[in-house]
Amino acid sequence: MPPNTPFQAEIIAVGTEVLMGEIINSNASYLSQALAELGVNVYYHTVVGDNPNRIKAVFETAMRRANLIVVTGGLGPTDDDLTVATLAELFETPMVADPASEERIRQFFIARGMPMSSTNLKQAMRPVDAEPLPNRTGTAPGLFWDVSTHVAKRGWNTGPCYILAFPGVPREMKTMWTEVAMAKLKPLLPESAVLVSRSLQFFGIGESMLGEKLRDLMAQASPTVSPYVGQAEVRIRIAAKAPSEAEALTLIEPVAGEIQSRLGTYCFGSNEEPMEAVVAQLLRAKQKTVSVAESCTGGLISSRLTDISGSSEYVLLNMVTYSNQAKETQLGVSSETLASFGAVSGQVAAEMAMGIREKAQTDIGLGITGIAGPTGGTDSKPVGLAYIGLAVADQCPIVKKVLVNAQYDRHQIKHWFSQYALNTLRLYLLDSLDPD
Amino acid sequence: MPPNTPFQAEIIAVGTEVLMGEIINSNASYLSQALAELGVNVYYHTVVGDNPNRIKAVFETAMRRANLIVVTGGLGPTDDDLTVATLAELFETPMVADPASEERIRQFFIARGMPMSSTNLKQAMRPVDAEPLPNRTGTAPGLFWDVSTHVAKRGWNTGPCYILAFPGVPREMKTMWTEVAMAKLKPLLPESAVLVSRSLQFFGIGESMLGEKLRDLMAQASPTVSPYVGQAEVRIRIAAKAPSEAEALTLIEPVAGEIQSRLGTYCFGSNEEPMEAVVAQLLRAKQKTVSVAESCTGGLISSRLTDISGSSEYVLLNMVTYSNQAKETQLGVSSETLASFGAVSGQVAAEMAMGIREKAQTDIGLGITGIAGPTGGTDSKPVGLAYIGLAVADQCPIVKKVLVNAQYDRHQIKHWFSQYALNTLRLYLLDSLDPD
Repeated sequence: MPPNTPFQAEIIAVGTEVLMGEIINSNASYLSQALAELGVNVYYHTVVGDNPNRIKAVFETAMRRANLIVVTGGLGPTDDDLTVATLAELFETPMVADPASEERIRQFFIARGMPMSSTNLKQAMRPVDAEPLPNRTGTAPGLFWDVSTHVAKRGWNTGPCYILAFPGVPREMKTMWTEVAMAKLKPLLPESAVLVSRSLQFFGIGESMLGEKLRDLMAQASPTVSPYVGQAEVRIRIAAKAPSEAEALTLIEPVAGEIQSRLGTYCFGSNEEPMEAVVAQLLRAKQKTVSVAESCTGGLISSRLTDISGSSEYVLLNMVTYSNQAKETQLGVSSETLASFGAVSGQVAAEMAMGIREKAQTDIGLGITGIAGPTGGTDSKPVGLAYIGLAVADQCPIVKKVLVNAQYDRHQIKHWFSQYALNTLRLYLLDSLDPD
Repeated sequence: MPPNTPFQAEIIAVGTEVLMGEIINSNASYLSQALAELGVNVYYHTVVGDNPNRIKAVFETAMRRANLIVVTGGLGPTDDDLTVATLAELFETPMVADPASEERIRQFFIARGMPMSSTNLKQAMRPVDAEPLPNRTGTAPGLFWDVSTHVAKRGWNTGPCYILAFPGVPREMKTMWTEVAMAKLKPLLPESAVLVSRSLQFFGIGESMLGEKLRDLMAQASPTVSPYVGQAEVRIRIAAKAPSEAEALTLIEPVAGEIQSRLGTYCFGSNEEPMEAVVAQLLRAKQKTVSVAESCTGGLISSRLTDISGSSEYVLLNMVTYSNQAKETQLGVSSETLASFGAVSGQVAAEMAMGIREKAQTDIGLGITGIAGPTGGTDSKPVGLAYIGLAVADQCPIVKKVLVNAQYDRHQIKHWFSQYALNTLRLYLLDSLDPD
């Protein structure tokens, strides 16, 4: 096939467990991003179950509207893994055992000292004119199959058409993508159309207000500026198509800069960087340590802070003081404060922050107490209410009251609380935290 | 349309952010499960970007192969929200402003004391013969549209055909599904084909070994038994189709019982119930309290334990002792132990467990120390290694060594470590924890 052919990609997941909703199709998300980085436009994602006729119909539809089909799933050893055999049937192509794949599968089991099931050798079968993609971390090889002539013969499409098949296990698929598949694809790609996107993340401002502030930029044709809602933040995607990544970035960067200057500290990060990573950079840059005393978030803030590699530089000791007694004995929260204001109060959050800071001997102490629900709320202290205290040396603690939509579930409310707490820490480190 | 029509459903997500992989299509997963519970077969998921021509093409394809189209996304207030207008165009149907929807949108902003943007009123537009689905938690109403005559006129399909449209924000979609849409669908459904599925979850055994043990059951036609891999567990789905849910369960339950008896304590739960919920039930049933001292997991075990509402019954105080000093001063881990065996050792895990148990005055103390990576590993103590200690009164602590695949990322390794720790607690509570 000629090099420099523009690809239009479709990503297909084969698997009843995905179709029935038991597994979320995160593979499609990964592959879309990976293909975009190579400048390949993805126009469709499709999910189909383990049914040969529907698999065939989905592939026919795909090859009529796309010329790079990336399929995940259905390569396993069991009888409901149908992708390869069904594709061979669709194109009336004989299957052969691939000796190199057989050898890899045998070695996979030998290396792990595990007995090989005979069904595993089924995974070494491939259509005679397809090339296997070796799988270093699992048993199922993938496929790289130039089906251009098959597709042309059936009148579905003209020009080049490729199928790339991967196992459905995300880890195996990702390893094969980076180690094997990208090298196969790159020589086939044109130089002339890279789609680059950057995203910015915002906290403390809603999607519609953000849209109002960026209306003029969103009306532009290039780069495109589009808002969407994340887990506990709003995001803006800025995307541009250009001959090279550098040229696309030349289009994107001034717009990103303009957005950041309009939104100030509402913008907390870029490119999917989570709040905890932003906070980690600030703690490192300012050489500050932090300790957290959590009640309603139950350890989530601590866990998020330590999701960042190297967090032992600024995390020493955190506590989850769930009971009033633990708040008193471990953090020195006074029983009078607990009795007068209740465990969920600004006063207790402040004393928790001061207490953990002193105990852990850190620069900053953070305390949080609230009601994650679904039970435990009252009229005056509803589910979704939390107080965040932030303590440093020689100053009165700062307290923030937070009210999260009570319609969220407990898990989401905990996440929002943790996001507010980390954002409070971020604003403090930026010298932008107003007492209120 | 006649009642009792069997539906074949397709779930479509409209949105460039989903197509580009910035948002994972979790809506499709939710809707698949929700439709299965109503006995509706879902045959396809499709994702398409914010492009009118491709949206039209995807809907045409869908309505040629399915008769219940559930679409999420593209109902927002901004200019790239195209679903409703594009569908109206596809069917050459005029749009009208819906007064009830307008009023709801106005009230939504008044209730929140927020100014309404004029673009929000765009969301009150609907095709003249479509019915709005009210959205209690957001501004975009959905649609319930009988397009049978439109579809028949174009020769795409005969018989009934419906479109249900929801906003892309998962929370809004889910609320509308349960509060409004299900009631619209139910009267249209036949009584005769409910697909019921149950899942079982396993820890400490791999998918292939599980497959070997259940080969005979997996060969049966009904109920179907299929394994798949979860986040840190293997799952078995048992599914049966029957005239009623009760009859389906009659098919499923003996098979579930047989699987549980073959796998014993490898099976930790059913129906997506997370490990922490299983542990919570056991702690309640045995009236035990637990405290956790975490190093490598950084608070994740504590956070998971407190994800369960009512966890204040058995969680009082947990600690994240990240530094050696915190392990010594807070938990009483001896400096000799730290010096002789290193912070990542069975001895330290045991002393952490004893220390937190004493400090928190709980029945059980759990300690964990390990290397979550990506840095910090050595030949003798690689990334993925952890020790779990479990302490109770008047007994030597039990220590478990855990080795997680180092190819996982830090986040996944932390999750696996937390899963091992919670499973250790589960086995102890079941009197099935062997010292080794």
